[in-house]
Amino acid sequence: MVKVGIVGGTGYTGVELLRLLAQHPQAEVVVITSRSEAGLAVADMYPNLRGHYDGLAFSVPDIKTLGACDVVFFATPHGVAHALAGELLAAGTKVIDLSADFRLQDADEWAKWYGQPHGAPELLDEAVYGLPEVNREQIRKARLIAVPGCYPTATQLGFLPLLEAGIADASHLIADCKSGVSGAGRGAAVGSLYSETSESMKAYAVKGHRHLPEIRQGLRRAAGKDVGLTFVPHLTPMIRGIHSTLYATVVDRSVDLQALFEKRYANEPFVDVMPAGSHPETRSVRGANVCRIAVHRPQDGDLVVVLSVIDNLVKGASGQAVQNMNILFGLDERLGLSHAGMLP
Amino acid sequence: MVKVGIVGGTGYTGVELLRLLAQHPQAEVVVITSRSEAGLAVADMYPNLRGHYDGLAFSVPDIKTLGACDVVFFATPHGVAHALAGELLAAGTKVIDLSADFRLQDADEWAKWYGQPHGAPELLDEAVYGLPEVNREQIRKARLIAVPGCYPTATQLGFLPLLEAGIADASHLIADCKSGVSGAGRGAAVGSLYSETSESMKAYAVKGHRHLPEIRQGLRRAAGKDVGLTFVPHLTPMIRGIHSTLYATVVDRSVDLQALFEKRYANEPFVDVMPAGSHPETRSVRGANVCRIAVHRPQDGDLVVVLSVIDNLVKGASGQAVQNMNILFGLDERLGLSHAGMLP
Amino acid sequence: MVKVGIVGGTGYTGVELLRLLAQHPQAEVVVITSRSEAGLAVADMYPNLRGHYDGLAFSVPDIKTLGACDVVFFATPHGVAHALAGELLAAGTKVIDLSADFRLQDADEWAKWYGQPHGAPELLDEAVYGLPEVNREQIRKARLIAVPGCYPTATQLGFLPLLEAGIADASHLIADCKSGVSGAGRGAAVGSLYSETSESMKAYAVKGHRHLPEIRQGLRRAAGKDVGLTFVPHLTPMIRGIHSTLYATVVDRSVDLQALFEKRYANEPFVDVMPAGSHPETRSVRGANVCRIAVHRPQDGDLVVVLSVIDNLVKGASGQAVQNMNILFGLDERLGLSHAGMLP
Amino acid sequence: MVKVGIVGGTGYTGVELLRLLAQHPQAEVVVITSRSEAGLAVADMYPNLRGHYDGLAFSVPDIKTLGACDVVFFATPHGVAHALAGELLAAGTKVIDLSADFRLQDADEWAKWYGQPHGAPELLDEAVYGLPEVNREQIRKARLIAVPGCYPTATQLGFLPLLEAGIADASHLIADCKSGVSGAGRGAAVGSLYSETSESMKAYAVKGHRHLPEIRQGLRRAAGKDVGLTFVPHLTPMIRGIHSTLYATVVDRSVDLQALFEKRYANEPFVDVMPAGSHPETRSVRGANVCRIAVHRPQDGDLVVVLSVIDNLVKGASGQAVQNMNILFGLDERLGLSHAGMLP
Repeated sequence: MVKVGIVGGTGYTGVELLRLLAQHPQAEVVVITSRSEAGLAVADMYPNLRGHYDGLAFSVPDIKTLGACDVVFFATPHGVAHALAGELLAAGTKVIDLSADFRLQDADEWAKWYGQPHGAPELLDEAVYGLPEVNREQIRKARLIAVPGCYPTATQLGFLPLLEAGIADASHLIADCKSGVSGAGRGAAVGSLYSETSESMKAYAVKGHRHLPEIRQGLRRAAGKDVGLTFVPHLTPMIRGIHSTLYATVVDRSVDLQALFEKRYANEPFVDVMPAGSHPETRSVRGANVCRIAVHRPQDGDLVVVLSVIDNLVKGASGQAVQNMNILFGLDERLGLSHAGMLP
Repeated sequence: MVKVGIVGGTGYTGVELLRLLAQHPQAEVVVITSRSEAGLAVADMYPNLRGHYDGLAFSVPDIKTLGACDVVFFATPHGVAHALAGELLAAGTKVIDLSADFRLQDADEWAKWYGQPHGAPELLDEAVYGLPEVNREQIRKARLIAVPGCYPTATQLGFLPLLEAGIADASHLIADCKSGVSGAGRGAAVGSLYSETSESMKAYAVKGHRHLPEIRQGLRRAAGKDVGLTFVPHLTPMIRGIHSTLYATVVDRSVDLQALFEKRYANEPFVDVMPAGSHPETRSVRGANVCRIAVHRPQDGDLVVVLSVIDNLVKGASGQAVQNMNILFGLDERLGLSHAGMLP
Repeated sequence: MVKVGIVGGTGYTGVELLRLLAQHPQAEVVVITSRSEAGLAVADMYPNLRGHYDGLAFSVPDIKTLGACDVVFFATPHGVAHALAGELLAAGTKVIDLSADFRLQDADEWAKWYGQPHGAPELLDEAVYGLPEVNREQIRKARLIAVPGCYPTATQLGFLPLLEAGIADASHLIADCKSGVSGAGRGAAVGSLYSETSESMKAYAVKGHRHLPEIRQGLRRAAGKDVGLTFVPHLTPMIRGIHSTLYATVVDRSVDLQALFEKRYANEPFVDVMPAGSHPETRSVRGANVCRIAVHRPQDGDLVVVLSVIDNLVKGASGQAVQNMNILFGLDERLGLSHAGMLP
Repeated sequence: MVKVGIVGGTGYTGVELLRLLAQHPQAEVVVITSRSEAGLAVADMYPNLRGHYDGLAFSVPDIKTLGACDVVFFATPHGVAHALAGELLAAGTKVIDLSADFRLQDADEWAKWYGQPHGAPELLDEAVYGLPEVNREQIRKARLIAVPGCYPTATQLGFLPLLEAGIADASHLIADCKSGVSGAGRGAAVGSLYSETSESMKAYAVKGHRHLPEIRQGLRRAAGKDVGLTFVPHLTPMIRGIHSTLYATVVDRSVDLQALFEKRYANEPFVDVMPAGSHPETRSVRGANVCRIAVHRPQDGDLVVVLSVIDNLVKGASGQAVQNMNILFGLDERLGLSHAGMLP
């Protein structure tokens, strides 16, 4: 039984971790921290958990308690894992960070996009980017895992087969992405109010979004060279879900794209390449740790359109974190993650 | 392993049965029928099920195949179970009917509300109303179970403690109920379109709704006498969820209502009486087989307000059906139903 | 041309005032204040207004500028109008207050519900409750108008015919009300986030809501005696709209309720009594200054059900404020308010 | 006063025409037809119109009555205007067709995309494509106007400045478009149900959508040569709104795109080029006859991103139809269309 700690459990990735771990047969949450809610029972904050975590209350973060866990998840804003990860690793506790703190390998680039110095550059070398479809073997041996962001997960999984095979023009990739509002977190912000986001669609951060360098880093690795990426995120009136619509020009029209994608993900438990001609819906992965992908070449032209959907809180955050934990502790990768999406 | 058949699996209660049974360790769906979709793989119709029912396709209903099952669920419009239940029972197969066919004990009343003669009045005597919180012992021994409707489940569970204790004026009960749109089913009806139901709230069927006689029958049983009930259903812009707001005048203000409700449901695995002062949200039970209840007496007056929420497709239909199956086959009542609701 | 000032124009009632006044042929907004947004053009905050208020920017509130207006609307949290109304009246400017500051006639009751002393009790005597369907003549001569709240408007208009005619048992009235999220305002509150309110329904403030004393005061006036009211507000996943479902026991079943309601509102431009058997939808009044009402007596019993819908930001706030302005300045009451609701 | 007839007024473009014309000072709807609803008062079908069209009921289409109108709008499925337009023109009545019947200039291409022969090829020569920003002068003199589709309006207005100026690579244009569900019409289709479309996002018709040839035809005209266009429509959980996100490679990075767009639309009453760096929201044009556009060049690269939003039922259909009528009859182009969008 893996003893789990969660730092910062009051946000949406926190409650989703609790929901998923409640049905995990080999993990037990023994501590969950929150400075602002210390003392409150988790089920008083999240009534969907009533009956599932009856003794568990938020506590003030404390290295001793956290260091007694086998693994600690950070479900925090950026900066927090920087401050605590080193001590936990020293205590022999593994760290799975859902925040952006260890996603970029270059501390300077991190500092540029997050507007503050990197707080733990000495840990960057050993931090493993927790995308199992790329880094499964490194994850197995890691101590510190950076769980990919939501947009980066859907977008990389959609582009990887094309770039690894070298059949797309890597200089002009486009990712037109649509996210549900929960991607903005549980913070009290006017821009996330129901009355501001319902019945409306908008792009945002066209100039540059923090997930851009993360996606670019992953695509570069896949392509083996620098890539040109235009990334336009959109806020969509739904709670959960990311729909990445990806565009690339193929340099060789004769490649069987459907076969390429099916082969690339043949052994992946959580990537589902749909039949040719499909249009994946985000609701088909609601609550589930799955990325569904379809690949199209409209009008038989040279432009490939990849449709890639995930639940931003599951395969885009907490589910992927649990998948990483399973790999890290030598468990069946599917444990606690095998349920179907909720439709309708 | 219980061998399960499903008749009419293309609607929302059908896909929800499949979702729940996919994670049930002691049940296996061996046949699912649909005249209109015969031959289609279930995962082609419901992509959330991809990877879960790989060999399973809809087939034309056939008594021989269905009769080889241990239990058959009817997830059909009314009338269908009337036609088939008798033969299945004769074949030794148990029947759990999610439709309205066997909910009313009086065939004439059924005929009046459903606009056609009752098709199997000879089975009414042995049909058990599948509300485990009332009829658990009868369910255990039943061959034919009528799963309660969604409004009736939320409403009865909210009123029962008051009526059984005889402390409410049973002549003037009010149930103001709000339902998500999935309650109207998957039929192609203008009134269920997104553009007709989103961003709007309305009452409907104030004159008389088919669930009225069902609720009245259940409340009568609890009160031990006839009851007067005003039932006003409302269509709410959400997919899932029922919120019953119940009003009754108490004849004795000295009763500790909170204690009364907690005691009534102390041993119920799927009824959660919330702390005094709570306001249950439908999202707290989204996808979960739970009824959450709170009881209020505003301004210390003689009017009791009970708030009762369920997911109409789970505790209001398919989850309750599985709960009945568990009881019927002597399994742990919680099997396949112990997951938490999905919030947000 | 009426010269209009608006205090506190950054909230939803503020932008709605601007939207309505933009198409009003006899009114011109000359000043709009906001401490936090001073200097910002209104169209930069509310892009729907681009092209409509090209010179207008938020300014710091200033009695001299406001006092040069013919009328000043307060679209502010409670307490602000208390502080400024007196000075404006002294300057000869009329005041139409959309906040709760002058709605209750009893300063002590106000203090009790709003948790602070009443800031201008000396003005209470002359404050007119701006429900034109009740107080049209007083409004005509008023200097200071308290625009009714959203729940109170829909609820009073639904109950009035019954109470004025003395045919309802006034001791046990029930108002089960459903509101869109914009009723909670534009403040950055977790409880108003999309991810907290979408796909869910809940009751709130069952113990006691600030609109309770306001509604009770209005119903008392109508009944000519004290009333007993249970008021349960619900948060509904839509931006705009209030649906009041009202319950009362009639003391005389022989009264023709449909005729009673039609007669009561025969000359009201903004109250629409629908045909017998109707179910008004909130979307039918979206954006329009209309209250639509239907009256039912289910199963021919003694319980009356009144369905009353408004747009909380129009007839429940800014539209009603403009209607008051029209009356106050001797204009056609319909000016700027005659457009149809937006459906779908 | 322009005498208006509407053929097929029961769909969403029909009711939206009625809503807009109700506030038009120079037009009067004298006849509205529907075979299925003949005899029904329009306000009985669309309660938002109660009080606005008190004498008006649907009637069976009849050339004599329609031919007595100054103009007839077709708010019908494709094929209907083919059958009737000729007779009406012969009777001296102008025709404004909101359907797709006369949008494509090539009868064979129409036949290919709509799966039936073109029903009135002899009228194609004189049919004018009713995009005022391109064809205002021809509209003024037209007898038969084809109102552009919703996707085509938002997409063409976004691309035109780039193509007319010859600064985009016309061979690889991408239009990633998001539409509200009302774009699918009021037909009873499973795919348009609330429970199928809410809380989900999906692409559709990636292989080829009927609006593709229409957009391509318009862009070809603007570019003066053939264009390569990839068009991916998405279904978005909102009632109204289209958000076109457009991608093109500029051949000259030195061009001031903001100035180019502002100049192109300087005199257009219904195209609003927002300040540099803006992200238009569909809600800013809800109910209004406006197209809001912003132009970006992220990371100072060679890829231009144009964001273009409209209300699909207004500038994308009925509003644009009224705008065409105003031009056609020599009225102020803004008549009946000058109201602001509804936000929130």
